[in-house]
Amino acid sequence: MPTQISLAQDGTITPEMIFVSEYENIEADHVKDLVAKGEAVILKNNIHNIKPLAVGEELKTKVNANIGTSQAHPELENELVKLKSAIDAGADAVMDLSTGGDLNSIREKIMEVSTVPVGTVPIYELMVSGKDLTIKNYIEIIKKQAQQGVDFFTIHSGIKKEHLPFIENRLMGVVSRGGAALVAYIKNTGNENPLYKYYDDILEVCAQYDVTVSLGDGLRPGCINDATDKAQISELEVLGELARKTREAKVQVMIEGPGHIPLNQIKENLDLKKKFAGKTPFYVLGPLVTDIAAGYDHICGAIGGTLAAYYGASFLCYVTPREHLGLPDANDVREGVIASKIAAHAADLALGKKGTIERDNKLSKARADFDWETEFNLSLDPAKARDRKESCKTADYRVCSMCGDYCSMKISRGI
Amino acid sequence: MPTQISLAQDGTITPEMIFVSEYENIEADHVKDLVAKGEAVILKNNIHNIKPLAVGEELKTKVNANIGTSQAHPELENELVKLKSAIDAGADAVMDLSTGGDLNSIREKIMEVSTVPVGTVPIYELMVSGKDLTIKNYIEIIKKQAQQGVDFFTIHSGIKKEHLPFIENRLMGVVSRGGAALVAYIKNTGNENPLYKYYDDILEVCAQYDVTVSLGDGLRPGCINDATDKAQISELEVLGELARKTREAKVQVMIEGPGHIPLNQIKENLDLKKKFAGKTPFYVLGPLVTDIAAGYDHICGAIGGTLAAYYGASFLCYVTPREHLGLPDANDVREGVIASKIAAHAADLALGKKGTIERDNKLSKARADFDWETEFNLSLDPAKARDRKESCKTADYRVCSMCGDYCSMKISRGI
Repeated sequence: MPTQISLAQDGTITPEMIFVSEYENIEADHVKDLVAKGEAVILKNNIHNIKPLAVGEELKTKVNANIGTSQAHPELENELVKLKSAIDAGADAVMDLSTGGDLNSIREKIMEVSTVPVGTVPIYELMVSGKDLTIKNYIEIIKKQAQQGVDFFTIHSGIKKEHLPFIENRLMGVVSRGGAALVAYIKNTGNENPLYKYYDDILEVCAQYDVTVSLGDGLRPGCINDATDKAQISELEVLGELARKTREAKVQVMIEGPGHIPLNQIKENLDLKKKFAGKTPFYVLGPLVTDIAAGYDHICGAIGGTLAAYYGASFLCYVTPREHLGLPDANDVREGVIASKIAAHAADLALGKKGTIERDNKLSKARADFDWETEFNLSLDPAKARDRKESCKTADYRVCSMCGDYCSMKISRGI
Repeated sequence: MPTQISLAQDGTITPEMIFVSEYENIEADHVKDLVAKGEAVILKNNIHNIKPLAVGEELKTKVNANIGTSQAHPELENELVKLKSAIDAGADAVMDLSTGGDLNSIREKIMEVSTVPVGTVPIYELMVSGKDLTIKNYIEIIKKQAQQGVDFFTIHSGIKKEHLPFIENRLMGVVSRGGAALVAYIKNTGNENPLYKYYDDILEVCAQYDVTVSLGDGLRPGCINDATDKAQISELEVLGELARKTREAKVQVMIEGPGHIPLNQIKENLDLKKKFAGKTPFYVLGPLVTDIAAGYDHICGAIGGTLAAYYGASFLCYVTPREHLGLPDANDVREGVIASKIAAHAADLALGKKGTIERDNKLSKARADFDWETEFNLSLDPAKARDRKESCKTADYRVCSMCGDYCSMKISRGI
């Protein structure tokens, strides 16, 4: 079955493109053009029965939530609760990053339950299996996952043997799990990264199922000190080349970005991405604008994510308050998704994207009118907003427990 | 007793300037110059026994936490718990915005207990007293509060009769409580704002006790739609004139800023402040980059605050998760302070301010070394970071419950 990019390049407007055009409120023909040029991707494995989701600079900024088991918490049940929490909070996509329990059955269940596209990092399954890191074993895993309907894969093909010296002077070294495994492999064997060397074989599988490749940044900086260094930029340059190669193979592609980046380098990072990869959709993790906020990294991620999206990132991978400290629970997931939704919305608002400010205006009008129910319902987390208002009683429901009779709205209206 | 600005202009380096120079790690002579030019203020009533706090663009970005009773929650005890919560979380100053209970004894107690400078909005006491809004009544209140040792006053002198027509087309009207009271007074009486008309009388009191004036933005926008409008900018222009007048009277002065501002207008707002008021320290509330995050407005405030501080704001007034919904409790206070501390630190980091990145680097080194105790202690909220790590058990304490044996640091080190 041809991929969306291949159909778009042939001039075909697919049902997926029509669905996207309605969701984004733009012309289907324009969606087709964006997909053809690789400036937007449509996340949907061609055998996965799911609403397609488009990601691209011209579209609404999207949010991804990572879920998945770990060795310490291998239970599927928790992950299904977290999946629901993520989707309820407004996540546009999820990634199953499971590394504990029976990965296969966990993935199958998540694929079955999720109403949004699902991504994975296939090298995790290889790591957990204990099998050798060979292209044969890797291909076997991505084939199986593609057949299960996974919509996008993070693939760390950008790390090359020649990059290893650049890591030496880092404070934090390699902080990507997939990246660390590949660097260890290169060091131990002296061989080139097989995901780079045999990238064509990977593309063949992705083409067959229209799995979007998300080129992973295995050398992303893990602290402010390492931001925008030679290791990171050299890998980004390779990711740019691979993105072109991916599109030539008629496979859809995004590029992943950092990481820990100080505020003043965020625009520079987006400019570098543009230089090496044009308008290939950029999928950023954070970025975190400081290292010192353990327990509050969702806030660091929201600050960096807003700016990144404002300068052209299209897809924000959430960061939860549990980042750096442990596996998130359902509450962490909700807090992380909402923080990223704030970032996405604030950036879209600043960019003047169609249909964005209307929600702010409706909510603010309701606020001025003491129409709390409308205000709650237009908020990103209606239940929390309602609880925070109603847990503090006031004699007059119209006002809140902060201002009471001194409410500026009440004074202004002479009530 | 002469004020800090008056002494600085005479070439005197005061003990307060020396204290500030040590805290900020800059020359005392330079502190003197900044204070003389009005580019920094030292918050400290000359009869208040407290460590002085300096605020200015060249110095570390500071954070203020608003506390205070309301009609619905008039209990002093809560506020003392919130005061402790704010200071423990790292607030550099607090404002007592009480409007419930016996304001006088509440203020006295807060002044006694606080180890950081305390500000107030004196018009609140006048509103709560039910007395007429006359300059005589206002002066009486600020005299008493100055004698109690209050370190800075928010004074809404910038609203003028001529501004009223500019409010008409707003979605949210006037959202400052003091601003709403003054606008109502002007509308009802046809008179000019007495805080503008008799500003010299106010300055006389402030000069006597070296109370820093914080020129309030009574017409700040209360929603994205109203941002950077004629009402806001016209008032800001008046605040610039009043700032010059304040310094001529040898009184220290800051200017307050908005409010709800979309990301793309934050730099513009700082540029406007600079145009009208040069390097007068800018004290911003947020700014909030969207209206739709009720329950999470501390995150909106952290996003806007980081950018505002990066572009030149010196003092961030925190926003809590309870903003727009009710009176914050001690937990809201902590969350609000930490969010603003993240913003302040992230901006100082991006600006390359001295002594900032060292903390990130130390923490990141500890993180790479699995030295959790150091990592917790260098985090903004050590207790929360420790709890989030330790509430998820792992067989090997070095790793967290997310990555376990697949920890990138563990792999990289071949452990």
